[in-house]
Amino acid sequence: MNKPKVPKATAKRLPIYYRYLRFLHDAGKDRISSTELSEAVKVDSATIRRDFSYFGALGKRGYGYDVENLMNFFSKTLKQDRLTNVALVGVGNLGHALLNYNFHQSNNMRISAAFDINEDLIGKILSGVPVYPMSDMIEQLKIQQIEIVILTVPTKVAQETANELQKAGVKGIMNFTPIRITVPDDMRVQNVDLTNELQTLIYFLDHYKKEEPKLEEE
Amino acid sequence: MNKPKVPKATAKRLPIYYRYLRFLHDAGKDRISSTELSEAVKVDSATIRRDFSYFGALGKRGYGYDVENLMNFFSKTLKQDRLTNVALVGVGNLGHALLNYNFHQSNNMRISAAFDINEDLIGKILSGVPVYPMSDMIEQLKIQQIEIVILTVPTKVAQETANELQKAGVKGIMNFTPIRITVPDDMRVQNVDLTNELQTLIYFLDHYKKEEPKLEEE
Repeated sequence: MNKPKVPKATAKRLPIYYRYLRFLHDAGKDRISSTELSEAVKVDSATIRRDFSYFGALGKRGYGYDVENLMNFFSKTLKQDRLTNVALVGVGNLGHALLNYNFHQSNNMRISAAFDINEDLIGKILSGVPVYPMSDMIEQLKIQQIEIVILTVPTKVAQETANELQKAGVKGIMNFTPIRITVPDDMRVQNVDLTNELQTLIYFLDHYKKEEPKLEEE
Repeated sequence: MNKPKVPKATAKRLPIYYRYLRFLHDAGKDRISSTELSEAVKVDSATIRRDFSYFGALGKRGYGYDVENLMNFFSKTLKQDRLTNVALVGVGNLGHALLNYNFHQSNNMRISAAFDINEDLIGKILSGVPVYPMSDMIEQLKIQQIEIVILTVPTKVAQETANELQKAGVKGIMNFTPIRITVPDDMRVQNVDLTNELQTLIYFLDHYKKEEPKLEEE
């Protein structure tokens, strides 16, 4: 209960830090100054310091950061020290693209099962991932102990699918449908709303054209 | 210069408010209380009030919100009162999926041009969108006066493509590549990093399992 509450914005930056540290480590670099880190990941150094402060003392004044230590710390924090299997529910256009999307490349997570109602896909292996019928979803998710699901079903069945996922013991949903699904308190939904992202971009271009090109990143 | 500075988090919620208001309007509803709005969009009412406060008085105490007025206000704010054309650069798996993705459905924006180096795609019309060769990109973007681009090229050519986009007068990039591209101050990048989203979800599940299931959305 005494864990510091890490803001969502900080949590979203952790993978960025982690990726760059791995890149540095692969390049044989031992340490990095906070200024270098800031420039590389495009996050101002005050924000980096605040982000890191949630995890205690990670660097040393005047020395900067030890690349390997910091990389290992984030690897553990992000659970990259062991493989996380996720399932994809809904193998339409976007689902297909996500099966091909290289989540696994240098990240310890992969889509290990997919579900759909399309008879042409069921029983096939797409991009290395088996496609099961929706009717087997709850059973397979339980057997495979998958707690995280990427949801790419049609909007009109999004909520009922989420209800099924709850029965299967799923704890996290990456929701690509445009609706806000309702889940119990012990489940978490990460919304990836592409229309929303595009509208936000249009909004910013229209409203901050000359005056304030750089916006606070929260 | 006197425009209020709208936080990124607020801007991201505007399309959510707008979508729900349109839904209410279509259903023939005239007004909505702040409590109803809060429950429907799953944003707490204090946050809604703060968000709306950036745009002046939008509701009346004891009355709630006038659905049509508010909808029209957000429509204008989000530039939904006229069509915004965007281009897609890189027609791979994800690019294909985005061409099929229904950005246009009830939103006044569409992908009107796509670019790729693949000879099999160039000159074809995919999901209603013409695919041009990359060599014509700058010219076509200028002719079509497209200022917003969805970037789905391979990582290794992301930065050089962004440089070309700058020459074409593009002002906003929705960046689906995992790298952080560098752009001049008058361009804006909206990063949609799917690996990052998934890692963040995994992180939250692991760290807030029992104690704090609901996180601040900022």
